[in-house]
Amino acid sequence: MQAVGIVVEYNPFHNGHLYQLTQAKKETEADIVIVVMSGTFLQRGEPALISKWSRTEMALANGADLVIELPYPFSAQKAEYFAHGAVQLLTELGVEFIHFGSEAGDILPFYELVDTIQKDFSTINSYVQEHMKLGLSYPRAFSNALTRLNRPTAISLTEPNNILGYHYVKAITDQGSPIKATTTKRIQAHFHEQSISSNHIASATSIRKAINEGTPLADIAHTMPASTVNLLTKYKKENKLLHTWDLYYPFVQYKILSSSCEQLRDLYECEEGLEYRLKETIKFAPTYTDWIELLKTKRYTRTRLQRLVTHVLTNTTKEEMQTAHSEGLRHIQLLGFTTKGQQFLKQTRKQRNLPILTKRAKATGGIAELEERAAVIYAQPLLIHARYRAIKAEFNPPIQLHSH
Amino acid sequence: MQAVGIVVEYNPFHNGHLYQLTQAKKETEADIVIVVMSGTFLQRGEPALISKWSRTEMALANGADLVIELPYPFSAQKAEYFAHGAVQLLTELGVEFIHFGSEAGDILPFYELVDTIQKDFSTINSYVQEHMKLGLSYPRAFSNALTRLNRPTAISLTEPNNILGYHYVKAITDQGSPIKATTTKRIQAHFHEQSISSNHIASATSIRKAINEGTPLADIAHTMPASTVNLLTKYKKENKLLHTWDLYYPFVQYKILSSSCEQLRDLYECEEGLEYRLKETIKFAPTYTDWIELLKTKRYTRTRLQRLVTHVLTNTTKEEMQTAHSEGLRHIQLLGFTTKGQQFLKQTRKQRNLPILTKRAKATGGIAELEERAAVIYAQPLLIHARYRAIKAEFNPPIQLHSH
Repeated sequence: MQAVGIVVEYNPFHNGHLYQLTQAKKETEADIVIVVMSGTFLQRGEPALISKWSRTEMALANGADLVIELPYPFSAQKAEYFAHGAVQLLTELGVEFIHFGSEAGDILPFYELVDTIQKDFSTINSYVQEHMKLGLSYPRAFSNALTRLNRPTAISLTEPNNILGYHYVKAITDQGSPIKATTTKRIQAHFHEQSISSNHIASATSIRKAINEGTPLADIAHTMPASTVNLLTKYKKENKLLHTWDLYYPFVQYKILSSSCEQLRDLYECEEGLEYRLKETIKFAPTYTDWIELLKTKRYTRTRLQRLVTHVLTNTTKEEMQTAHSEGLRHIQLLGFTTKGQQFLKQTRKQRNLPILTKRAKATGGIAELEERAAVIYAQPLLIHARYRAIKAEFNPPIQLHSH
Repeated sequence: MQAVGIVVEYNPFHNGHLYQLTQAKKETEADIVIVVMSGTFLQRGEPALISKWSRTEMALANGADLVIELPYPFSAQKAEYFAHGAVQLLTELGVEFIHFGSEAGDILPFYELVDTIQKDFSTINSYVQEHMKLGLSYPRAFSNALTRLNRPTAISLTEPNNILGYHYVKAITDQGSPIKATTTKRIQAHFHEQSISSNHIASATSIRKAINEGTPLADIAHTMPASTVNLLTKYKKENKLLHTWDLYYPFVQYKILSSSCEQLRDLYECEEGLEYRLKETIKFAPTYTDWIELLKTKRYTRTRLQRLVTHVLTNTTKEEMQTAHSEGLRHIQLLGFTTKGQQFLKQTRKQRNLPILTKRAKATGGIAELEERAAVIYAQPLLIHARYRAIKAEFNPPIQLHSH
């Protein structure tokens, strides 16, 4: 049995995701698809619209055979850590391939780029630092550094999926993982070429935007599998809300207003006096959106700041994150599986070093603790009964899908 | 010009308060009444129903000539610190008398009790510690210690106003203050004796209880001056709420769930493993009231625990409180004054060591910082515009009443 791994957020699962999952399986001729999915808080520093359990159901309903949790210390992170955690989990699980969508669409330039950067690492790094000191964001500084070194790449490094792809290949190389990386051009362009109505494809960002603006699900239902629409509807009905930053804003505001600058400085990603900026801007910003606009600078991207705000919300300190990372993964948290997924786990049991966790009760170590705390904070905007259910759900067994 | 000082919360101002204020002036033949009033969080560990500014208006409308703020490091405290701060402020202001209502009603036993305790301090203290180790609350342990020493007092020390009175007299003695203490029997009994309908008198606790239960103000209006009813109505209309613990519960819950035990242990009054108890009990307690019931033990009174919860909410550490207390008062915060009050301040200017603050912008030091933070947190349940107004109001000039 061969497996292909993909790294996802499914926030929410849409037709583009379905296309990638199908392509991944087809192109690699794998028997099963293993999905590594972020838990509660995501790479852009946002809460997931709906719980990890509902998103696991979406994944299982649409072809995933195993859903594995990417825990908080990797999920709410810049591309480098995010990719590192995901590749480590997939290597441990014994997948043959990792598959990702990219703007580039060809895998060779990714390997070439990793090679180039490895050779000229210290020069590139010093250029990046230099450009960042001039006020450029990391992706822009990185891209400039390559141009300056006369090592132009075929991959545009300001495209988010290219950056992630680069970091997957880099993590594979750094970790000496036997996984083979493979990529497909992102769906939007692809479908366009094949003259399929572009209406059926929309980015998760634009779907979330529509949902946040109150667009009825029926009006965007054609961009998602029916199972996604049903699960979103069910979640909203049972929980009376979808998780958006606005709902967490009172807590962030309270946290910043009640903390000293010294306490804020201890939090992960609070660097270079950002604690003062947090305090100055939050007192009179009426909404989360207004506040982030106030907070933004040329130096710090919105994504970078949203991740900081996520760590402020979850009260994650530099020390805790460092401990979690240096301890490393102690287990693999299983969120969902199909019969075929279960067979794969049985067959590969002896090749794994880490135990597969089916109940969080047994979890120990910094990574599990940070994920658990994030899950409790994630549940905070819910009304009382929904909140209990959400907190207790952390200790649920994985979701089992008996047949595809 | 002679002044009598009284120490109050006015949460809210009612007929019993009016009676005490009138008696204080009459009995001492003072020209003016100086009121030292708690700011935002009160001695029982509760938020004040309405802002310090509205309560200042209540005081001025009913005979107070000066309203002085008792800041957070003294207001949300056990009787000893509460009395210490209040007596220090009144001494600094140069009042001739301090007047308090008590269950006892006679001032002599208070002086006698202070004398007794001073003489046998170490024995009483060791008895108190011993009884507390057996699980008794402080007031009960204290009362038992006196009985055991065969020093029974005419004052029942389980009555809250007697305890406060004892601590006023003790603070006067300890500080070597020239203030003379005087007391009147509490109004409820007094009115009863004089056959005035007890309907016109209700404790602030029972008034708050009625308000919390949704009783229309009209139904309890006869227990308060018309100005109180008007100011409560106005506050509620402008701010859409009265400040009750329920509104702060989500923040306390968030704070406890997002903090480590070590972080909770750093907070003021979090002693003897209470951090674990906070964490264990809060996750599944649906309301604040349910939670406090779960939290209570024979050892810790509700009031003691509510004060702890207040410090958790305001994120006040042991270190901050110690710094504030050891720095001491750096100024006197004026909240309101009448023409006569202003005259008194002019006449006594040269006798004061501390500046009178009319705007908080000039405030420095730990005491002022803790009060300001408490005021910002106090405003957190308000809707956005009301919240801005409340936060900005901290820097308002005092309220001036031109004539009585």
